[in-house]
Amino acid sequence: MYKLVLIRHGESTWNLENRFTGWTDVDLTPTGVSQAMSAGQLLKAEGYDFDIAYTSVLKRAIHTLWYVLDAMNLTWLPVVKSWRLNERHYGALQGLNKADMAKQYGDEQVLVWRRSYDTPPPALEPTDPRCERGDRRYEKLNPSDVPLTECLKDTVARVIPFWNEALAPAIKGGKRVVVAAHGNSIRALVKYLDGISDQDIVNLNIPNGIPLVYELDAELKPIRSYYLGDAEAAAKAAAAVAAQGKKA
Amino acid sequence: MYKLVLIRHGESTWNLENRFTGWTDVDLTPTGVSQAMSAGQLLKAEGYDFDIAYTSVLKRAIHTLWYVLDAMNLTWLPVVKSWRLNERHYGALQGLNKADMAKQYGDEQVLVWRRSYDTPPPALEPTDPRCERGDRRYEKLNPSDVPLTECLKDTVARVIPFWNEALAPAIKGGKRVVVAAHGNSIRALVKYLDGISDQDIVNLNIPNGIPLVYELDAELKPIRSYYLGDAEAAAKAAAAVAAQGKKA
Repeated sequence: MYKLVLIRHGESTWNLENRFTGWTDVDLTPTGVSQAMSAGQLLKAEGYDFDIAYTSVLKRAIHTLWYVLDAMNLTWLPVVKSWRLNERHYGALQGLNKADMAKQYGDEQVLVWRRSYDTPPPALEPTDPRCERGDRRYEKLNPSDVPLTECLKDTVARVIPFWNEALAPAIKGGKRVVVAAHGNSIRALVKYLDGISDQDIVNLNIPNGIPLVYELDAELKPIRSYYLGDAEAAAKAAAAVAAQGKKA
Repeated sequence: MYKLVLIRHGESTWNLENRFTGWTDVDLTPTGVSQAMSAGQLLKAEGYDFDIAYTSVLKRAIHTLWYVLDAMNLTWLPVVKSWRLNERHYGALQGLNKADMAKQYGDEQVLVWRRSYDTPPPALEPTDPRCERGDRRYEKLNPSDVPLTECLKDTVARVIPFWNEALAPAIKGGKRVVVAAHGNSIRALVKYLDGISDQDIVNLNIPNGIPLVYELDAELKPIRSYYLGDAEAAAKAAAAVAAQGKKA
């Protein structure tokens, strides 16, 4: 049996400000730092150990991983960073306030943008200063692979190749893997692993900074999965994520 | 013309306590953190940019690199960690106070241990709890490759293959390289690059947390090299390193 640990980054400055973040490279808040440290301490206390770590090219996930590795005294571990683990690209919504958008367009429209499986938010213009196409960290990608917006379906389409080509071979090779990533790149993995339908994935929320453990069989099919630590706290944190797009 | 930047880690807890460190995995002091941050700010202010970073598997170098990357907004950069960039192994001296050893054995003996090119300090016993052979980060090495002590000649012998197989190909491939490492792994690189004799290398000291820039020709021969920032401060810091083994 294999184990895989997924961790959504701790609270970011734009989580706190209730803004759509996407590929914008905002940092952790002090709360987010605490969450990341706690995740590492919890993993250590529960006897977890890792051989390799994966994260995105966004600092809120990278810093989360660094705090986790520090707490576990695993600073020396190899770390692979990939844009494929980035947060879903939020298009022209990046930087805008979720509640403001709900007031302007209604809760339902915002829920569609946040959670519809196949309807992307309005795209960024390539000339928009928020567009990441000129960012050096993406310069080796085909420019058309650098999204201007994404629905979750698009995110799944670029996360799953990374599962197939990097994560799954590492796990099958006997490596104990930890992934520090984002709400939607983790939702993409969970959807794939658990075979969640396009409809049901709308209701799945990933809390910040709580390790999500998958026990996998020899074929990497999930046997069971659970949040580490206080289950009630994890459920509350997930509910809070779900409520972010409400006007109130 | 290529540029290569080498940075010795910021002050560590055992630098501060004047203890022989070697492969013992001690962390940075608050001063060391400041030095690392300053190195990153200086590199950024001077317009440096990198494509890949290399460091050891010891946290004082890894943390130094993290602070440098943070200051330069390069958190996303690929980072390669190798035991070949570790500090020289100090054998049975690891953890002992340099000035105490000088009182006990004399300045001259300590200078031999610290700076002789080919006389290693007394070896650690493999049963010594300080021996790193059981450490998971070295488990893939041939146990006989995990040293029980090293003279600088031994350090050179394991650093230069890393130059030839990793650093030099990356630089020739057009990648801008930064290396965060240790006093003696950097001395090994400097000795090799500048063709310093076994005798003269004794007098070369690398200050903590000051970027050392090499400008290299197409064959990676040094055109010139210099410390970034305040030259006088760099010279003073190097002199302080030289003085650590004195009784006074």
